[in-house]
Amino acid sequence: MRNIKMTIKYDGSRYKGFQRLKDNDMTIQGKIEDVLSKMTNEHIEIIGSGRTDMGVHARGQVANFKTNSKLSLKKMQDYLYNYLPEDIVITELEEVEERFHSRYNVKSKTYLYKIDNNKYHDPFTRRYTTHIEKKLNIDLMREASEYLVGEHDFTSFASSKSKKKSNVREIHSIVINENNNMIDIYVQGNGFLYNMVRIIAGALIDVGSKRKTPQDIKIMLENKDRSKSSDTAPAKGLCLYKVTY
Amino acid sequence: MRNIKMTIKYDGSRYKGFQRLKDNDMTIQGKIEDVLSKMTNEHIEIIGSGRTDMGVHARGQVANFKTNSKLSLKKMQDYLYNYLPEDIVITELEEVEERFHSRYNVKSKTYLYKIDNNKYHDPFTRRYTTHIEKKLNIDLMREASEYLVGEHDFTSFASSKSKKKSNVREIHSIVINENNNMIDIYVQGNGFLYNMVRIIAGALIDVGSKRKTPQDIKIMLENKDRSKSSDTAPAKGLCLYKVTY
Repeated sequence: MRNIKMTIKYDGSRYKGFQRLKDNDMTIQGKIEDVLSKMTNEHIEIIGSGRTDMGVHARGQVANFKTNSKLSLKKMQDYLYNYLPEDIVITELEEVEERFHSRYNVKSKTYLYKIDNNKYHDPFTRRYTTHIEKKLNIDLMREASEYLVGEHDFTSFASSKSKKKSNVREIHSIVINENNNMIDIYVQGNGFLYNMVRIIAGALIDVGSKRKTPQDIKIMLENKDRSKSSDTAPAKGLCLYKVTY
Repeated sequence: MRNIKMTIKYDGSRYKGFQRLKDNDMTIQGKIEDVLSKMTNEHIEIIGSGRTDMGVHARGQVANFKTNSKLSLKKMQDYLYNYLPEDIVITELEEVEERFHSRYNVKSKTYLYKIDNNKYHDPFTRRYTTHIEKKLNIDLMREASEYLVGEHDFTSFASSKSKKKSNVREIHSIVINENNNMIDIYVQGNGFLYNMVRIIAGALIDVGSKRKTPQDIKIMLENKDRSKSSDTAPAKGLCLYKVTY
């Protein structure tokens, strides 16, 4: 069987998230599987690098699927482009070795959290940014982010619904760029707990707006207690930017 | 009475255009007038710099209105921000002399036409760009645009529905930028006929895709015949970028 890796860009606004739920639910996975199954006359299931929540976007989500179809990659990509809704686009298709697995083989993931820090939000980016009216202090946010880089127990930064055996993860880097009051927060790590990037974004917003100090973030991390940390920032500002293998 | 000038940014996707139509129609003008009338307890009519069509966007539309309200500009702007839908934002409010008129006093207007020239469209900009799959030749488009700059009779570039006394207008400049297959066409002029920028965009797309030569554009202009020129490019790629007084 062929094993095919796909890179997916999507505007998650209309969807209940990446992962397939019940058959009639709007999910990215569901939409892609339906088109692939129709294309190949097979029952196709795709394996995503991980789920993204309701309303979260992606520029570089990765998934793979197995098929006996003899269609060329180019024909597949054109078929997918023509039959998927316009808010989901497959940007790359690649044939990979049979043992490649989109979830197990992840080396690192990069998420991008976007904040519109202008007094009034921009109508053109409103679906893909979180608007924070109060001017954020970027230097303080950068200082706070340094406490999060490295290997830590991120219990304080995971939804209490998260049921992983271990909450230890490694964040490789957090880069914060600002341009015309648009703030981009890139968080790269070897794995993320449920809601982890959105809680990190919430904590950095708390610091930027001086409700918390950078040192509070260090204490928050040491507390290992979700109930004492920051709110989860809105889904629409979050984007799965890149998955590395 | 106070005369107040406003700069308006809007995502026109949901609207039947700028200009107020019947009372229940979705128009930008209608939405703004409703909020201003509620705010001032007066019957407010705004004067726009000109209409924009159904589905066309604006980054710098200008309008003015007269009022006896004593509210500060800051309070007005906050009120408008809170009560307007999130796809319409007033970016500036300014008190101007009584004789200022948003339409009569226009010195020049700049429109921006955006083309996504990647093989597959970008889901995040799909509402604000026109997707052209075939690679466009920018140099040919620039060469063609030079024939349009200057004072000309633009009959070939106006909707046949346009009923102006004269079709002579002056285009000051056409600037075409390309970055990562995203093409921005800025057209600045002293006035524009109905659909003029969209027909210019259609003609430049014809040249870029080699259906027409740059010299064809010169002939098209000289023909003064709408029926022999290019198709009107889609509304969603167009944005009223700036109005100068």
